[in-house]
Amino acid sequence: MDRIENDLLGDLNVPINAYYGVQTQRAIENFHISGVKLSQFPEFVKGLAYVKWAAAETNFALGLLDEKLKNAIIQAAKEVIAGQFNDEFPIDMIQGGAGTSTNMNINEVLANRALEIMGYQKGEYQYCSPNDHVNLSQSTNDAYPTSIKLAAINSNIQLIEHLKKLILSFRRKGVEFKHVLKMGRTQLQDAVPMTMGQEFEAYAATLEEEIDRLSQNSALFFEINMGATAIGTGLNAAPGYAKLCAENLAKITGLPFVSAPNLIEATSDTGSYVIYSSALKRMAIKISKICNDLRLLSSGPRCGLNEINLPPMQPGSSIMPGKVNPVIPEVMNQVCFRVIGNDLTVTMAAEAGQLQLNVMEPVLTYAIMESMALLSNGMDTLATKCIDGITANEAHCRDMVLHSIGIVTALNPYIGYKNSTKIAKEALETGKSVYNLVLEHNLLSKEKLDDILNPENMLGPKMEK
Amino acid sequence: MDRIENDLLGDLNVPINAYYGVQTQRAIENFHISGVKLSQFPEFVKGLAYVKWAAAETNFALGLLDEKLKNAIIQAAKEVIAGQFNDEFPIDMIQGGAGTSTNMNINEVLANRALEIMGYQKGEYQYCSPNDHVNLSQSTNDAYPTSIKLAAINSNIQLIEHLKKLILSFRRKGVEFKHVLKMGRTQLQDAVPMTMGQEFEAYAATLEEEIDRLSQNSALFFEINMGATAIGTGLNAAPGYAKLCAENLAKITGLPFVSAPNLIEATSDTGSYVIYSSALKRMAIKISKICNDLRLLSSGPRCGLNEINLPPMQPGSSIMPGKVNPVIPEVMNQVCFRVIGNDLTVTMAAEAGQLQLNVMEPVLTYAIMESMALLSNGMDTLATKCIDGITANEAHCRDMVLHSIGIVTALNPYIGYKNSTKIAKEALETGKSVYNLVLEHNLLSKEKLDDILNPENMLGPKMEK
Amino acid sequence: MDRIENDLLGDLNVPINAYYGVQTQRAIENFHISGVKLSQFPEFVKGLAYVKWAAAETNFALGLLDEKLKNAIIQAAKEVIAGQFNDEFPIDMIQGGAGTSTNMNINEVLANRALEIMGYQKGEYQYCSPNDHVNLSQSTNDAYPTSIKLAAINSNIQLIEHLKKLILSFRRKGVEFKHVLKMGRTQLQDAVPMTMGQEFEAYAATLEEEIDRLSQNSALFFEINMGATAIGTGLNAAPGYAKLCAENLAKITGLPFVSAPNLIEATSDTGSYVIYSSALKRMAIKISKICNDLRLLSSGPRCGLNEINLPPMQPGSSIMPGKVNPVIPEVMNQVCFRVIGNDLTVTMAAEAGQLQLNVMEPVLTYAIMESMALLSNGMDTLATKCIDGITANEAHCRDMVLHSIGIVTALNPYIGYKNSTKIAKEALETGKSVYNLVLEHNLLSKEKLDDILNPENMLGPKMEK
Amino acid sequence: MDRIENDLLGDLNVPINAYYGVQTQRAIENFHISGVKLSQFPEFVKGLAYVKWAAAETNFALGLLDEKLKNAIIQAAKEVIAGQFNDEFPIDMIQGGAGTSTNMNINEVLANRALEIMGYQKGEYQYCSPNDHVNLSQSTNDAYPTSIKLAAINSNIQLIEHLKKLILSFRRKGVEFKHVLKMGRTQLQDAVPMTMGQEFEAYAATLEEEIDRLSQNSALFFEINMGATAIGTGLNAAPGYAKLCAENLAKITGLPFVSAPNLIEATSDTGSYVIYSSALKRMAIKISKICNDLRLLSSGPRCGLNEINLPPMQPGSSIMPGKVNPVIPEVMNQVCFRVIGNDLTVTMAAEAGQLQLNVMEPVLTYAIMESMALLSNGMDTLATKCIDGITANEAHCRDMVLHSIGIVTALNPYIGYKNSTKIAKEALETGKSVYNLVLEHNLLSKEKLDDILNPENMLGPKMEK
Repeated sequence: MDRIENDLLGDLNVPINAYYGVQTQRAIENFHISGVKLSQFPEFVKGLAYVKWAAAETNFALGLLDEKLKNAIIQAAKEVIAGQFNDEFPIDMIQGGAGTSTNMNINEVLANRALEIMGYQKGEYQYCSPNDHVNLSQSTNDAYPTSIKLAAINSNIQLIEHLKKLILSFRRKGVEFKHVLKMGRTQLQDAVPMTMGQEFEAYAATLEEEIDRLSQNSALFFEINMGATAIGTGLNAAPGYAKLCAENLAKITGLPFVSAPNLIEATSDTGSYVIYSSALKRMAIKISKICNDLRLLSSGPRCGLNEINLPPMQPGSSIMPGKVNPVIPEVMNQVCFRVIGNDLTVTMAAEAGQLQLNVMEPVLTYAIMESMALLSNGMDTLATKCIDGITANEAHCRDMVLHSIGIVTALNPYIGYKNSTKIAKEALETGKSVYNLVLEHNLLSKEKLDDILNPENMLGPKMEK
Repeated sequence: MDRIENDLLGDLNVPINAYYGVQTQRAIENFHISGVKLSQFPEFVKGLAYVKWAAAETNFALGLLDEKLKNAIIQAAKEVIAGQFNDEFPIDMIQGGAGTSTNMNINEVLANRALEIMGYQKGEYQYCSPNDHVNLSQSTNDAYPTSIKLAAINSNIQLIEHLKKLILSFRRKGVEFKHVLKMGRTQLQDAVPMTMGQEFEAYAATLEEEIDRLSQNSALFFEINMGATAIGTGLNAAPGYAKLCAENLAKITGLPFVSAPNLIEATSDTGSYVIYSSALKRMAIKISKICNDLRLLSSGPRCGLNEINLPPMQPGSSIMPGKVNPVIPEVMNQVCFRVIGNDLTVTMAAEAGQLQLNVMEPVLTYAIMESMALLSNGMDTLATKCIDGITANEAHCRDMVLHSIGIVTALNPYIGYKNSTKIAKEALETGKSVYNLVLEHNLLSKEKLDDILNPENMLGPKMEK
Repeated sequence: MDRIENDLLGDLNVPINAYYGVQTQRAIENFHISGVKLSQFPEFVKGLAYVKWAAAETNFALGLLDEKLKNAIIQAAKEVIAGQFNDEFPIDMIQGGAGTSTNMNINEVLANRALEIMGYQKGEYQYCSPNDHVNLSQSTNDAYPTSIKLAAINSNIQLIEHLKKLILSFRRKGVEFKHVLKMGRTQLQDAVPMTMGQEFEAYAATLEEEIDRLSQNSALFFEINMGATAIGTGLNAAPGYAKLCAENLAKITGLPFVSAPNLIEATSDTGSYVIYSSALKRMAIKISKICNDLRLLSSGPRCGLNEINLPPMQPGSSIMPGKVNPVIPEVMNQVCFRVIGNDLTVTMAAEAGQLQLNVMEPVLTYAIMESMALLSNGMDTLATKCIDGITANEAHCRDMVLHSIGIVTALNPYIGYKNSTKIAKEALETGKSVYNLVLEHNLLSKEKLDDILNPENMLGPKMEK
Repeated sequence: MDRIENDLLGDLNVPINAYYGVQTQRAIENFHISGVKLSQFPEFVKGLAYVKWAAAETNFALGLLDEKLKNAIIQAAKEVIAGQFNDEFPIDMIQGGAGTSTNMNINEVLANRALEIMGYQKGEYQYCSPNDHVNLSQSTNDAYPTSIKLAAINSNIQLIEHLKKLILSFRRKGVEFKHVLKMGRTQLQDAVPMTMGQEFEAYAATLEEEIDRLSQNSALFFEINMGATAIGTGLNAAPGYAKLCAENLAKITGLPFVSAPNLIEATSDTGSYVIYSSALKRMAIKISKICNDLRLLSSGPRCGLNEINLPPMQPGSSIMPGKVNPVIPEVMNQVCFRVIGNDLTVTMAAEAGQLQLNVMEPVLTYAIMESMALLSNGMDTLATKCIDGITANEAHCRDMVLHSIGIVTALNPYIGYKNSTKIAKEALETGKSVYNLVLEHNLLSKEKLDDILNPENMLGPKMEK
């Protein structure tokens, strides 16, 4: 059963029980694109509802909305935030119209729910209109990006939680592997000794930096343009509305939102998305590099580096029995490639802004939110299904160090780079050990040499005795 | 209710009614990543089933599989192709393991369905084993990419149908607007006259080239590596298997598959995906450019170029009454940005191949298939919801030509570039018309001038009379 | 005439007057790649010299280098900083070896120059060795990235100067065009009125944000890894060296360098380049958007928006007389596209780090330094050859506002969204003005209407009276 | 000393001996951007001259240019092609104006040189004008892209020569390493045996496909738009000019140029650049993957895979004596990353076309030509300085195979996947060999086992005996 609503373009049937209305219905019909709906990003739906709540508070405070309407709209918003109406947001994430459909979707859902709350029927917009009441003092061009920013901030908080968990997993391994001596490698060539603990702690340390980067870059989202209305001039918004609405949103959400100093600039600019997406990309690059390392270090079991063992998650091959593959780092690499691809989508979308607006915000939003979800899921998977279960092949690692040529580096301060080079070359050609060659050439006493070539002595700076 | 299956890692519960088995179950548990499942790409599931069908035929022909098993496996495959078991493919599109989970998913579904067909219970793998029978003479590393290629070819055929429809829409407008004289523009500056028919026919022409590009580049998918098994050496495949399996797949599908000349190369290489994705990107670039044009040409209604009107699809603004926006070109631009982002994901994934395999094929596959689906949906939307309804503002367009300075270009052959430049400059500075200025300066007779400056005479090459 | 030097690989001829030595010579021969030499980035050469200076000071302070050698090396470094030996850095910017050739280039130049200063001949490395003295306590893997960071910081300071100049140009136009009333546009459709001053001030404001972004992100470069030596364990560096060397570099350069808290992490990580390149990309995206706008606003002269005139820089066409094109915004758009491409190169290079090092730093460095140079040159060109000479077509702009439909938006608070929509629709269909239609329908008094529709009243928030 | 020339914008000094004129001079002054000049791409300068030659022939044939002028212009063009005037093309590759400056540069050089040939002074344009004679029947918008296409075709021919040389290097190693048994790897895990000859032949084979891809995609450049003039309508070109000019260019160059079927489409479209750049990217991806492999296979010498030795090109470290690094593959990886970055620049530039022209062609051209030069240089370097000198560690490779677990795969057809899995698992846990475990468990006779597990029997498909 349908009810009939109408707009600029005429009448249209809307499902009778739908809280959304005619404009949402048009968007459903216009945008069969990705099949991914607003409802799949609940943080985004919540963001929309919070913004409408803040607007209603502000309109009430400025005497533009009566108390009854305000209360009804806010109650409706709270219900949306509680997740009660998620299915009422069936529009495709990729949409034209710069988010107008999304803004009207929340306007319509809140209006119809507010109508019910006030004892009216859905569709009796004369008592609570999506445009004149819910959208009062707003435009898509301020309400929509503000919602995205709120959603991104909240998703970022969650993302950082997942990141911290992953860091902790690496850090724990750093402690666990403190005593595992292994060969460090540069350019994939044997370099000088280190411990596996140092290696894993370095992974923790490099990811720890991302907490700051994500926080610092998401902080740009706190600057919002409520009150900008259509193009940032604030037409149809009351004086003081912009500032007060930011304050109200801050109060409601507990987040330090402020009104952008230049609302015209803030309305067309998408710079905060660009740099935040870049921060996601930077983290993805780091994680991808780490996963490459993990796959390298666990290569083998007999014809590879074989320094570590990843926990087996599934049989590795439909043809090669007993093969176990690094499936979790592999899936994480792929997540990272997608995040990097999404960053390009954001780049293209941001560059396509024109004059007083950027109409490409929907795809930009979709790309960022997808990246955040993928990274959150992926990091969880990586931490619990891979890092936590890694074991070290300690004996093999130490063995490699003892037979390496790279330890010759430690002799530089004693016999000079040129002599060291000769020893290294001879070791490579003859297969002899560095240790024996130094003695053979009478370059250092055995005692001195034992001290210098003790691998444990090579793990940090050391004063010549 | 569950049944218990087991593999290299031990026992695992599988839902009792599931056609998939233990390895699919492990993948379900391992990969909570994108939430997008194999089942959302039915062409891919079909591709997997066709490949298994071809393998069963080939194994039978080579005496490796008995007739009863062959028939059961093939019937099961046909049922999958018919869409009967779509829900049995619940694995995430982004997965580690280079597609092993996907390959085992089809192996398990076919084995269990074949067991039923032969009168056994699900799980009685001694009678029909996912590995020893369904996967016989195969590896994930040949069966999986072959399935992807088949899926891509079929999706490409559909994509071209959507493309042709869009071309037709542009072509029809080319005919309809044949008599609409308008100003051509280069560098966004007024250039010389043309017809709107020429402009729209050029859109049709430029997209028509894409049919060849898509066909040419998807043709690389016909080269498959069945019989390569694990790394391309064909270990465990019988002599002749590779060639015969390609022939069988060709016979079954009606598509000209051939066995790759170098199976080792074919197993690790992802070049065909790269260039096909590039072809998708090229088309996306063209479509994005066209959509940019459409938005430009329909800018206004009063303060823009206002040459064409796009059909109104929805109210354009939550605050600006009566505003109608180019929502369909906008959504199409965004589709294109996502396709371009996906191409980067493909690039990263392809570059990450190592030694005898590229394990990043799942994300690469996902990116390409998503791009194809987005473009198909988008082009349909663009054709039916935008192009077909475009109307021209003929009078306004002609008016702009008549008042333009660019028509002075036509005078070059008669009065030279230097004189023409002077006229143009004077026209710009004084606001006078080119026509009057030429007469004023006695550069040409009125009769001659009338002939030269007749806009219709400027639409093509012309012999000086 | 040549002199003969030798290294691990044997003897090699070096030009007799060259300050560089055998390893530089090998690099010259090995890397015929881009043809772009280190010497084309003088800030980079300076960065290398400063780092060697700081290392020499530190080695001296720790008693590892005698005073005579220290003084000679530092004097040589100062001469390099003064630009005296720029031609002695002839190596290709794109090189293998993770920068070893570059590090040895500065080591050799300083060693040979120090030898001269001390009264020896070039090549008498027993008195001052590139490896044992100039490179003392260092590795390429700490000295090279530290040099890059210093170079990037200094180039960033210059870049910001160019940026400030461009901002000022926009800001001045913002003031100049304060009284030019014009139509704001969203989605390329007429929206609501604004002033051209607001538009240009918004350009200034959006670019002003980039000063903070560039500063904030380049600040990550202050964290250096001197003392890390080969892989971050500090092998062969004395205790205290790392911290002291960072302090010395800070003292010498006046920049707040600090030693990275985790030197192993700092040695393999390229995250600071990634996010700084992203900041360059973000700025490029903004500038590209602005240039797109400028080209749009200056489209015409008769068949476009024609709101502004860019200063003519050159004849616009080899065939169309009098045509003047927006060549400066066009060249700037292209600069931005190259910066965005370079950012992808940085992304790929960063992701390719492996284990304890990222060997792709040379191309990464090249990409970032090229982007900075292009942006500096481009912004200068844009400011002085375009923005400063822009003029407004004030009468035409005002005329467009008065005839627009978008001004109906201002009526929402008085007659509601639904009524306003009807008026807009009728205006569009009949060609009548909004003003007349409101009166015709008796929706508002003429007096009230005059007040509301006064465009100057639409430029900001306004209390309903 | 200068001479004075003038154009639309007034008088300007030009160096008295310059063959270029006023418009080139303006471009020199306007575009201080990249510092990379047209003259650095001699194939491009040649392309410009060929196009002007073909145009002169065509204009003469159509009676539009007298014989004396034609001959002088053609002689001048031939001299430019011979490289005599390379320094006369000092304009920045990144320029605004859609190539107008470049087109005027060649027009001016040819006009002035033709004037000299005819006995006049430089600058006496009344006898031979850059616009009216050299540029006759042309526009930048047809002459410029046609020149680019010709330059790209010729550069592509050279690129393929370099590619063939690289393929040959790999193929020769394929033959040389035919008898080197080694472990194949998938997902970096030990898989099944192969020969190193197969591995290197696969590199040859995968690159061989690129010859076709480069040829196929560069073939799109044969379609040119001479006669299109400003926007493709052919205004000011005589009927028949387009076709005849393409024929003349084909005759002069020996290349199969044809006139595009739709000149309007051909004038604004940059699709051929996009897909050709994609083909370059595809090749770069493949080469990058191969270089990653080479670095992996040569990792060690004692703590890595150590299967091959790359020829040492330079000492590898300023601190680690005797270290030799894979510097040539490393530099090639970086070339590939730049090519991939350039492809994104091409993508952005192509997408930015508007209406009847794409003004971003200069940066697009620069990106493609740079990529071609980098790849040519890089492939040469890779072939001669790396591949040709690779040696294999045969004994170590064979040893790894014999101790591997992966050979268990060959047992599948005899003992089934489940039994094989058990053997593999036990081998991994106990360190025992697969061989001994099969005998221990009485799964196969020793004789049979010897035959199956003979690694040489695993290198291809094999009928069960």
